[in-house]
Amino acid sequence: MIERVKRLREKMRTCGLDVFIAFKNCRYFSGTDAGKAVVIPLRGDPVLVCSRLELERARRESWIRDIRAFSGWRSPLLPGERVFFRQLWELLADCLDETGARAVGYDSAPAELILRLKRSFRAGYLRLPKLVEEMRMVKSEDELRLLRKAASLAALAMRRVSEILSPGISELELAAEAEHMMRKAGGEGTSFPTIVASGENSWLPHAKATERRISRTDIVIVDLGCYFRGYASDMTRTFVVGSSPKLEKLVSVVRRAQAFSLRLVRDGARAKDVDAAARRAAGRKLLPFYLHGTGHGIGMDVHEPPSLSPASRDILRAGMVVTVEPGLYVRGTGGARWEDMVLVERNGFSLLTASDLGE
Amino acid sequence: MIERVKRLREKMRTCGLDVFIAFKNCRYFSGTDAGKAVVIPLRGDPVLVCSRLELERARRESWIRDIRAFSGWRSPLLPGERVFFRQLWELLADCLDETGARAVGYDSAPAELILRLKRSFRAGYLRLPKLVEEMRMVKSEDELRLLRKAASLAALAMRRVSEILSPGISELELAAEAEHMMRKAGGEGTSFPTIVASGENSWLPHAKATERRISRTDIVIVDLGCYFRGYASDMTRTFVVGSSPKLEKLVSVVRRAQAFSLRLVRDGARAKDVDAAARRAAGRKLLPFYLHGTGHGIGMDVHEPPSLSPASRDILRAGMVVTVEPGLYVRGTGGARWEDMVLVERNGFSLLTASDLGE
Repeated sequence: MIERVKRLREKMRTCGLDVFIAFKNCRYFSGTDAGKAVVIPLRGDPVLVCSRLELERARRESWIRDIRAFSGWRSPLLPGERVFFRQLWELLADCLDETGARAVGYDSAPAELILRLKRSFRAGYLRLPKLVEEMRMVKSEDELRLLRKAASLAALAMRRVSEILSPGISELELAAEAEHMMRKAGGEGTSFPTIVASGENSWLPHAKATERRISRTDIVIVDLGCYFRGYASDMTRTFVVGSSPKLEKLVSVVRRAQAFSLRLVRDGARAKDVDAAARRAAGRKLLPFYLHGTGHGIGMDVHEPPSLSPASRDILRAGMVVTVEPGLYVRGTGGARWEDMVLVERNGFSLLTASDLGE
Repeated sequence: MIERVKRLREKMRTCGLDVFIAFKNCRYFSGTDAGKAVVIPLRGDPVLVCSRLELERARRESWIRDIRAFSGWRSPLLPGERVFFRQLWELLADCLDETGARAVGYDSAPAELILRLKRSFRAGYLRLPKLVEEMRMVKSEDELRLLRKAASLAALAMRRVSEILSPGISELELAAEAEHMMRKAGGEGTSFPTIVASGENSWLPHAKATERRISRTDIVIVDLGCYFRGYASDMTRTFVVGSSPKLEKLVSVVRRAQAFSLRLVRDGARAKDVDAAARRAAGRKLLPFYLHGTGHGIGMDVHEPPSLSPASRDILRAGMVVTVEPGLYVRGTGGARWEDMVLVERNGFSLLTASDLGE
């Protein structure tokens, strides 16, 4: 994490910043989600700011030693407890005052908070959400280890779903079982509400799991993922229950589209070309049913840059982790999506969501 | 939901607004989380704006009939599909243009989005996050029904935890089991990461479930909740495993503090008095370990106004739903918290998280 601070400081120099405050990216720089913000001066130690009730956890989890807590009301303290009876923005203003900052950058924070901070400490403020976004796109070895683990938990749950999926079971029961598997194995919670979309629910890209029971001939989209130590996974499979050549054909088109996309994934590839390959493979007739982009970056957020879509200007770089997930949603027939997480490499990619389901 | 729009319009008149755009509160006014924003003019029908991939779900779930989807890129459409190849802010600007709005209010949205909207359509913009917050504090009968259901799922999971809690089981296993119960019974997912905090983890108000196994004499804080159709629950119990007069005493102090707080809950009570009653009951010696406020409003957000804390200026009103959750976190000994959701009534309160665990 000290490496991250070093890289951030290079960018700060380029932008002429004296201090950067990481709100959205507090965990990325501090190693804990107990904090509200990290104040990173160009020189000197970073300061982690948290609410009083998170002070002990911040101490245990972060590498940052200068931790300052705030509390909105006066209350007795224990000896040595470092709590300031200030509002968050007042404490941040005090930190800025210590550094004598004149140019302050930050990532993303509620408008109200920034407004109050500006009133509490006079300086030039620059909203620079992309500064850290860009850093986060290429993953470190440590990050890859966590993403691999998160992906393996998703694959584990998907295997379990494939084992118990049968006529009569409800979407909700399948989702509950999948989530239970991930949680027991160490997942910190789902990275989005698990989708189990059967029958007419499969026409919706973002369906939820309902009480609908799987019928004897059904198409079922299962899209799931979890967090592991702050890193997300995301994986989709589409199952055809019983025998239906029409539905099986739909799944095979989507899988072919994914294969065509994946062929282009490598360092230097244009993200929009990867997207276009899937659309081409789907074919002109099915194109009106291709409702979303072909993929997205994934890391501490389940959706983050780069974007794999027709409007994207992103270039894939070795070390990025992206999903590749073509989907077709044919009203009246059924929907299908097939999604994997892949690591972009110099000459291709490697699969993070490896399972024995059709690979 | 039409009632909500009506009440909003009264407030809009008071503030002199021609249009209100609900971003954060999109679901509150539309009945679906498939949308990005609802544009509510003073006269005429509201417009629900969503991304193309959510259009079909928005149609199924919302009462609003004027639904417009945006897509960031051109792509073939099906006959009759109402998709605009625009960015979100451009589509919003078009909606504003139709109404000829001059004064536009909104709740909360990313700064970048508002900036772009301002550039796309010239009007006076007012950020009014409290306008809807205030409306949401007092719950309708429909909302209470959903909150009761969400609370009952939490109580169900808590009972299950009490059944399986024993030396040797891990915090993670307890959390996984609790979450599984809520999900199977119809919960949409946890309303926050389930806390199972045993031994020294119990000193942390916001601990997570770890792989730590429960020992023969342990104090265990379990804090859990889920969403049910968009409404959250939140409930905490503290269990003492084995026999420890010291730990049992700590739990009884916290429960007594809750009882003292609850005595004051009624229409017209000052929230800070409810908080003060718990602190007084905890006693001067334990006060440095009372690390957080005594409670918070709960509804579509798990934490929302009013706040039950020393700095609060809120007055409790009949129809509000709040948590009452005193907590003590004694380093070196153990932590304890006891939390229930209650509905504020004219002459008292009623309990939403009823279980057979010590009530």
